[in-house]
Amino acid sequence: MAKYPTKFYEDIHVGDEHTTETYFLGMEEVLEFAGKYDPQPMHTDPEKAKDTIFGELVASGWNVLAITMRLMAKSNPLGETPLIGMHLSESRFHTRIHADTNLIVKAVVKDKRMSSSSAKRGYVNMFLETFDADKDVLLVSQNWEIIVPVRHEIKPM
Amino acid sequence: MAKYPTKFYEDIHVGDEHTTETYFLGMEEVLEFAGKYDPQPMHTDPEKAKDTIFGELVASGWNVLAITMRLMAKSNPLGETPLIGMHLSESRFHTRIHADTNLIVKAVVKDKRMSSSSAKRGYVNMFLETFDADKDVLLVSQNWEIIVPVRHEIKPM
Repeated sequence: MAKYPTKFYEDIHVGDEHTTETYFLGMEEVLEFAGKYDPQPMHTDPEKAKDTIFGELVASGWNVLAITMRLMAKSNPLGETPLIGMHLSESRFHTRIHADTNLIVKAVVKDKRMSSSSAKRGYVNMFLETFDADKDVLLVSQNWEIIVPVRHEIKPM
Repeated sequence: MAKYPTKFYEDIHVGDEHTTETYFLGMEEVLEFAGKYDPQPMHTDPEKAKDTIFGELVASGWNVLAITMRLMAKSNPLGETPLIGMHLSESRFHTRIHADTNLIVKAVVKDKRMSSSSAKRGYVNMFLETFDADKDVLLVSQNWEIIVPVRHEIKPM
């Protein structure tokens, strides 16, 4: 994975864009994740899924959200500055998600503001979109508010 | 787990409350989940975590969100009607979350509305709070908008 330079609050600007690597979500992971975290037949059992409102097996949206986190963390958009979410909002599932899909995430900085209680931290709002990388279809979108140190306060990861 | 009667849109009312069973989040799961989905040192490495802004290992918030989904799915608040999230919002992390914590979820129905495009479906807004069950400390809160069939449209899970 590419290593980007470490960014502090001052280095992050509205409009900054970031695109991750891709991640292959296979059937084995779909079934394993759902069995553990979203145990409902439309996510866990290809046969029983036929009788659900989906009519087929679909991935848990939480699995795709978790992979979105992985793709962002692995691609180090802020270098050594960690991605610490304080507030996640507007997560929308735009279409059903099948197994055997290559996922990719595109993120853009929408807003930033200093903390009202500390001169050491600020908040950055990012809009994230997770796509089927092969079909270029939007699957999930969401907003993250992350906490970011100002330059003189960073600690190593 | 308790099996509740199957609920359709008509059976769900603002103010309805639901409390799940508890789930033990141990260190092994914290490390495994983070290694896969949130690979950052504050979540994956007890030693390196000491040098992060947390100063100690903390669970990934996504791990707790995923367990929240599990607790809801396993406790069947709507009986055979699945929990299908369309829109997740206002997920807030209220305090750091440690390994070896018993988690419990309390949910309350905040709003409901019929679909504007189909007489077969409605939307139900639920407010969920995930607590440390032993210390009664709020860890994560969020809103779910789920899609629910009206009575004559249900298919079996």
